[in-house]
Amino acid sequence: MRTQAAVALEAGKPLEIMEVELDGPKEGEVLVEIMATGICHTDEFTLSGADPEGLFPAILGHEGAGIVRDVGPGVTSVKPCDHVIPLYTPECRECEYCLNPKTNLCQAIRSTQGQGVMPDGTSRFRMTDGTPILHYMGCSTFSNFTVLPEIALAKVRQDAPFDKICYIGCGVTTGIGAVINTAKVEIGSTAIVFGLGGIGLNVIQGLRLAGADRIVGVDINPDKVPMAQRFGMTDFVNPKEVDGPLAPYLVDLTGGGDYTFDATGNVEVMRIALEAAHKGWGESIIIGVAPAGAEIATRPFQLVTGRVWRGTAFGGARGRTEVPQIVDWYMDGKIEIDPMITHTMPLKDINKGFDLMHEGKSIRSVVVY
Amino acid sequence: MRTQAAVALEAGKPLEIMEVELDGPKEGEVLVEIMATGICHTDEFTLSGADPEGLFPAILGHEGAGIVRDVGPGVTSVKPCDHVIPLYTPECRECEYCLNPKTNLCQAIRSTQGQGVMPDGTSRFRMTDGTPILHYMGCSTFSNFTVLPEIALAKVRQDAPFDKICYIGCGVTTGIGAVINTAKVEIGSTAIVFGLGGIGLNVIQGLRLAGADRIVGVDINPDKVPMAQRFGMTDFVNPKEVDGPLAPYLVDLTGGGDYTFDATGNVEVMRIALEAAHKGWGESIIIGVAPAGAEIATRPFQLVTGRVWRGTAFGGARGRTEVPQIVDWYMDGKIEIDPMITHTMPLKDINKGFDLMHEGKSIRSVVVY
Ligand SMILES: [Zn+2]
Ligand SMILES: [Zn+2]
Ligand SMILES: [Zn+2]
Ligand SMILES: [Zn+2]
Repeated sequence: MRTQAAVALEAGKPLEIMEVELDGPKEGEVLVEIMATGICHTDEFTLSGADPEGLFPAILGHEGAGIVRDVGPGVTSVKPCDHVIPLYTPECRECEYCLNPKTNLCQAIRSTQGQGVMPDGTSRFRMTDGTPILHYMGCSTFSNFTVLPEIALAKVRQDAPFDKICYIGCGVTTGIGAVINTAKVEIGSTAIVFGLGGIGLNVIQGLRLAGADRIVGVDINPDKVPMAQRFGMTDFVNPKEVDGPLAPYLVDLTGGGDYTFDATGNVEVMRIALEAAHKGWGESIIIGVAPAGAEIATRPFQLVTGRVWRGTAFGGARGRTEVPQIVDWYMDGKIEIDPMITHTMPLKDINKGFDLMHEGKSIRSVVVY
Repeated sequence: MRTQAAVALEAGKPLEIMEVELDGPKEGEVLVEIMATGICHTDEFTLSGADPEGLFPAILGHEGAGIVRDVGPGVTSVKPCDHVIPLYTPECRECEYCLNPKTNLCQAIRSTQGQGVMPDGTSRFRMTDGTPILHYMGCSTFSNFTVLPEIALAKVRQDAPFDKICYIGCGVTTGIGAVINTAKVEIGSTAIVFGLGGIGLNVIQGLRLAGADRIVGVDINPDKVPMAQRFGMTDFVNPKEVDGPLAPYLVDLTGGGDYTFDATGNVEVMRIALEAAHKGWGESIIIGVAPAGAEIATRPFQLVTGRVWRGTAFGGARGRTEVPQIVDWYMDGKIEIDPMITHTMPLKDINKGFDLMHEGKSIRSVVVY
């Protein structure tokens, strides 16, 4: 079939809107009509050329929601007309990782996904002239129709709006899951969140949901304060207004965070986040993606005196199991998404979404097909 | 009273054996006759001058066992003739830290202990000419008699030999506790231990006690293999015999450690230990004390893909509660200590114990008073 898609032809160039050829689903695969997709910093990271593992030409996008239109042989967990959210971290429920309760990093299709192809080693996408186009993060939601492995689809309720729940496919789950799955924040905790962009806001609402008492937000842009307060931030610290080192300042202010979260991707901030964690038991969670080759560092004394350094990917969530729950939380009003979707646009304007991100004007732009 | 002691007059000089004046116990304090004391790398770290917080003159030693001889007003948990092990990490059972099950780092007397004085701000030791001498790690077990706060004494059974259980005051508890309290190793785990000195051997026997299936020891000195095997090591890796980077080699060999332990104090090894931990869930525990100013580093990707970086102090043990249990384990034959006590000597020969450590000839030297 043919479908409309925004194609990343090469690093550093705008996406090109074009018709592409899409093969139907093979065994264990599903054809999904994407109804909406968010534009995430990870798409930008790859498109810019900064991602050393980025491959081109490819159809980016990994934060979508849509409807199953066809299934290949052997597919049993979804059927046409089901509403689904694509999962860049799949959940096969059979691999060594899925069977270990300590991790969500299903490895069933990891190597082919990293190569931009389906589990059988081939792509379903090609240009009308036959040039192959790669998949991206196993999702390629910047195409109106896409094919995914069954294990990479969370089936969700049908009354949830696509243009909001697409965000659960990445940012919402990443932020809330970091709190709930990775940090396992307890009621009454004190937390410090570095970076008040989309991930930071979702960390903050995760903390509110988990019953944290004190939620300190740290950002160099005070314009972000009202939205962060809306999501549950109780204290704001602007590092530009702090004299001297930031970590001791935050320890003085809070006693040390029971949990601290880096949502900046800056390795210097990651160090401050660790060192602002409470002596004896504070845990610091790295969420942000750092530039290629960047390293975190600290004195081992920080760990020997009881701080713990962790990271999280997709919020530690097992997508097929947990994403439908998070959709329920949204529909029940336990979490908010609407205020974070600051811009929507048709696919033909997708490059404007990237521009808004660069200009810092959006929290999340969503393409509605 | 007067007591025989080995005094560290200044950094980099041998200890001097002399008679010193010791004041009796004040409120909440206990006079202990030390019967035996180990000589630990931490004593050497301070004596050498490498410890930036080292103070002189002081009476070093923090790994002892002895008998209560007198108690000050208000002391209720020990009485004369009780056998005790001094605790450089006390357990007040009242502070914010003692009341938090996530940590053992009691802060009740931390600041005065760090200054080499008792909780009232004064030292009990002085030279016969009146020159004050400082306490060390709240213990000063290189004196035949010493005074400690009640909260820094673990009361232990009376049939346990002092010249063996003194080692529980530091090395044994540090190594075994890192496994049991900090890592919480499960039955069937795969573990990698870097450094097969005294701490490494105790980590290994802690792993055996915890039911680990595979216990990989890593050391550049193959002479350490027989003893490590005796304590439970199942595989040995000599980094000098490995071509290429060590962490990937260990991941190939083991699949990645469910738990890895650094018992070297070398920050480069700490990084390898982290990176040799299993993707998704491996935890790496820093036990060794690094040189002043040294920093650990890695790519945040290592954490984002599920590895956890922790440290441990005194094996995460609450001394008054857990040290008596470890003494029981020793007496019941669940753990071994005797083969690790390679040398004993009288106090007058204590400098020979440091020489043996420098020469790598001892696992543990113990001074018997
Ligand atoms: Zn994303
Ligand atoms: Zn799996
Ligand atoms: Zn020690
Ligand atoms: Zn305490």
